[in-house]
Amino acid sequence: MAKTKRVLALFLRFLAIGATIAAVIVMVTSHESSQVLDLTFTAKYSDDKAFKYFVIAEAIACAYSLIVLFTCSQSSLARLILILDVVIAMVLSSSVSAAVAIAHVGKKGNSHAGWLPICGQVPKFCDHVTGALVAAFAAAIIYFLLIFSTLYSAQNPLFL
Amino acid sequence: MAKTKRVLALFLRFLAIGATIAAVIVMVTSHESSQVLDLTFTAKYSDDKAFKYFVIAEAIACAYSLIVLFTCSQSSLARLILILDVVIAMVLSSSVSAAVAIAHVGKKGNSHAGWLPICGQVPKFCDHVTGALVAAFAAAIIYFLLIFSTLYSAQNPLFL
Repeated sequence: MAKTKRVLALFLRFLAIGATIAAVIVMVTSHESSQVLDLTFTAKYSDDKAFKYFVIAEAIACAYSLIVLFTCSQSSLARLILILDVVIAMVLSSSVSAAVAIAHVGKKGNSHAGWLPICGQVPKFCDHVTGALVAAFAAAIIYFLLIFSTLYSAQNPLFL
Repeated sequence: MAKTKRVLALFLRFLAIGATIAAVIVMVTSHESSQVLDLTFTAKYSDDKAFKYFVIAEAIACAYSLIVLFTCSQSSLARLILILDVVIAMVLSSSVSAAVAIAHVGKKGNSHAGWLPICGQVPKFCDHVTGALVAAFAAAIIYFLLIFSTLYSAQNPLFL
């Protein structure tokens, strides 16, 4: 039982690392230029603070999971790791949502505020961002599953 | 010790309810019209999906904490409540971030995408949104403290 639990945690940790690396790479390589009325319009992730936060948050989550994977086998650290997993899950879900909010304006615009959509001009950029968002959403779900499995599989009643 | 823990949890739960109610009320009442070149420009929270999501998420968190406060005194539900606290903390942090991302564009604009700031036209709307964001950020922190205190104060080592 303890071994199955450990294998599941390792598997989820690897999945989380894969998903966060994919999110960072796909977002960082989302760069496209297009010609609009003699003007060159360039879209890149670093143009928006939400996308920058997204990349930083995913990179931190990835580094954290790598550190946990290669250094912490002591069960005395289980409680600390669980608390840090909660922090990372919150950071990941916040970074995905901030990026989704901006991506939605980029795709649909906001007629009330007069913000026009830009995905018509830079469709490849938008595809990259969408891919990064899907990977990051998966990473947030995986972190929740990690927390859930840790809490669910603790064999004794936890709390007084 | 067990009593102190319970009082702290109750206190944090009340704080969370207060913060989420404040966030919902301040956001829902953020409504302002202004005259721009003979056109009436109206800003309200329901113009943007991120703000709608924000209101729904804060309301769900508030309702959840009320239900926990008035129905669950059994310690057998402690594990379920902890898992739901994690879900709510993730939902809250995501709703705050989505709203912050849009509010930032509303305040500063995004010159790369050609999105102009709107806070010059509707400053009171922006003040309301800022207030709601501060309350919601506090609520997310309080939920994290709830989770932290539950995990930290469990007296036995939790995990195999």
